[in-house]
Amino acid sequence: MTRANTTRPAIRVLLGEEIAMGPGKAELLQQIRQTGSISAAAREMEMSYRRAWMLVDTMNRCFKKPLVQTATGGKRGGGARVTKFGKDVLRRYLEMEQRAAASVEREMTEFRRLLSR
Amino acid sequence: MTRANTTRPAIRVLLGEEIAMGPGKAELLQQIRQTGSISAAAREMEMSYRRAWMLVDTMNRCFKKPLVQTATGGKRGGGARVTKFGKDVLRRYLEMEQRAAASVEREMTEFRRLLSR
Repeated sequence: MTRANTTRPAIRVLLGEEIAMGPGKAELLQQIRQTGSISAAAREMEMSYRRAWMLVDTMNRCFKKPLVQTATGGKRGGGARVTKFGKDVLRRYLEMEQRAAASVEREMTEFRRLLSR
Repeated sequence: MTRANTTRPAIRVLLGEEIAMGPGKAELLQQIRQTGSISAAAREMEMSYRRAWMLVDTMNRCFKKPLVQTATGGKRGGGARVTKFGKDVLRRYLEMEQRAAASVEREMTEFRRLLSR
């Protein structure tokens, strides 16, 4: 998860105890969109297929409509695509992240001067 | 960590691979400030003394000056106080968090309408 290695604000949208959307799930959505497959996305992110599948399941349950649609009957993992709704959720999420990051850009620069190196 | 159960943007300030400051460390600083003790702060946050001590150690190493000063020679944990520098770091961090949250308040309200309940 390359995104974790930045200092931009990480937004986690919670639904009860569950993280409906966060940096890891957003990255997974982007990878599924690019690869068309949960297992390929999992490989890209160096996580197990099982974990990727669980993250997708959580997202699909937490939102009103599915974000990812999986094709059944295929090989392990089959094909997967990000729905129109999922693309809208992802776009909104990334926009929030960008906006939050921009809002503290100057303060973050000052803050980082307090670090030891 | 009560702060985790909110949807405000969580800011993690990284120094290399380490989290110099984040929601958990900020909460710990606040608890040390209130209780004057690492062990009491750990209890409040339901974490082990060892873990709290390690978080303090990471903070103190990641910043130019110590954020927490510990009194040696006392009982386990002894006394601890947040330095003036630590209070400044904490204030700046909390201000960034607030600013980031305010910047996406409207978008977050809209986003949450996409959740399933």
